[in-house]
Amino acid sequence: MNWEAVYHDAKQWVKEAGERIRLSFQQTLTIKTKSNPNDLVTDIDQEIEQFFIRKIRDVYPEHKILGEEGFGDQLDQLNGTVWLLDPIDGTMNFIHQQRNFAISLGVYENGIGKIGIIYDVVHDEMYHTLCGNGAYLNERPIAPLKERGVKESIIALNATWVMENHRINHQILIPLVRDARGTRSYGSAALEMVYVATGRVDAYISMRLSPWDFAAGAILVEELGGIVTNLRGEKLDFLSKDSLFAAKPGLHQDILKNYLKNGNW
Amino acid sequence: MNWEAVYHDAKQWVKEAGERIRLSFQQTLTIKTKSNPNDLVTDIDQEIEQFFIRKIRDVYPEHKILGEEGFGDQLDQLNGTVWLLDPIDGTMNFIHQQRNFAISLGVYENGIGKIGIIYDVVHDEMYHTLCGNGAYLNERPIAPLKERGVKESIIALNATWVMENHRINHQILIPLVRDARGTRSYGSAALEMVYVATGRVDAYISMRLSPWDFAAGAILVEELGGIVTNLRGEKLDFLSKDSLFAAKPGLHQDILKNYLKNGNW
Repeated sequence: MNWEAVYHDAKQWVKEAGERIRLSFQQTLTIKTKSNPNDLVTDIDQEIEQFFIRKIRDVYPEHKILGEEGFGDQLDQLNGTVWLLDPIDGTMNFIHQQRNFAISLGVYENGIGKIGIIYDVVHDEMYHTLCGNGAYLNERPIAPLKERGVKESIIALNATWVMENHRINHQILIPLVRDARGTRSYGSAALEMVYVATGRVDAYISMRLSPWDFAAGAILVEELGGIVTNLRGEKLDFLSKDSLFAAKPGLHQDILKNYLKNGNW
Repeated sequence: MNWEAVYHDAKQWVKEAGERIRLSFQQTLTIKTKSNPNDLVTDIDQEIEQFFIRKIRDVYPEHKILGEEGFGDQLDQLNGTVWLLDPIDGTMNFIHQQRNFAISLGVYENGIGKIGIIYDVVHDEMYHTLCGNGAYLNERPIAPLKERGVKESIIALNATWVMENHRINHQILIPLVRDARGTRSYGSAALEMVYVATGRVDAYISMRLSPWDFAAGAILVEELGGIVTNLRGEKLDFLSKDSLFAAKPGLHQDILKNYLKNGNW
């Protein structure tokens, strides 16, 4: 496999897809007032997913595709080359804000991450890596992650998880939030993974995500030395929904041992 | 008073200050590894505040200045023309992220808001209004806010306020978060006010802020038809720290009546 060529194509298609989304904005804003905003977004989501599927099937007919909108393949294992795609990650932001959403695209070979691309469409910021070659924000290299203690950390975490909820005993997360320097919540798993990868936040915790939400982000975070698991500290399998815990090296072990492993859940 | 001239000068100085902050980035990133990051930020904060004070004193010697860094005037009332300035709002973001901070500048005449400017330096996005003339993002007019119900709302609110804390009984906010569509937290009061003004979030709640944190934001939100009070629904006085509650019209009354007024605090 010529991974450099796949990487080049993937970046090119993400860029083109971003351009389509940007062009749709004027139209979007008009349509939104006339019809159900959820339907509308599904239209654009679907259009972008189908755009990728056409491109991939054309150039790499032997590759498989797992996409949020379900136009790709049904997979029960990750043998061969698999593209994991979320055409618009952060749908609620897309509707409400027309910003803070991203295209998320991860390419795996036999379950091993090879290419990770997350594109902040509105700000024209593409975060990308071909594993082993460093990660970039557009053309600029992203520095590897350094260790950091809990008390100096900003954690991306939604307020929901420190209130009573049916995913996690919220009493487990409250001491972590108290000890950390602060929390943030941006509403797009892909962008929150980019924030971990670039060191803008030190950790990200979410309780239930799909493989296409974190497939690209996991590759980027790991390329820069961060650790990505579920909240029990187990490896993700990229075939099922799971919780997600991404953090700087050191910090990941610290939070897992001193906070997340307290209590049964 | 020629308010058009003041507006022009204020925007010009904010732009210049933003340029100084951007230029400092390379230097910043170098220095940060050598010294205490908090000290460093204070240096830039102070430099920018002093830049504004020189400009204002030079052109408008009779105006007063209330700034976060304390180089301006000590005021116990808002008679005359007062500039309320936060040179870098979102200090923690500035240190950790080198983004998601803003210059916040509000100009008041006898306590009445006249000019509001919030500048997202990194994205070169200036949100500004001369009261009564509409609000703009750079050169583009911002649409007035429309009413929205709680169930369709995104609320900017930090996770801290739904955990036990010494500012508010967290049980008051939990039902609101449960009923809303979602929450976000960006870590800069000025940008969170901009998010309310532009309709990207529908409400913003914070428990303790200083006048320079919300002086510009309040003007922008009100110019677009939103409502700004403290969490008890009282008018802000712009001279003391207070809680802050900004929201779309209708939604503000709804949340105040059906959530915030439940319980004693």
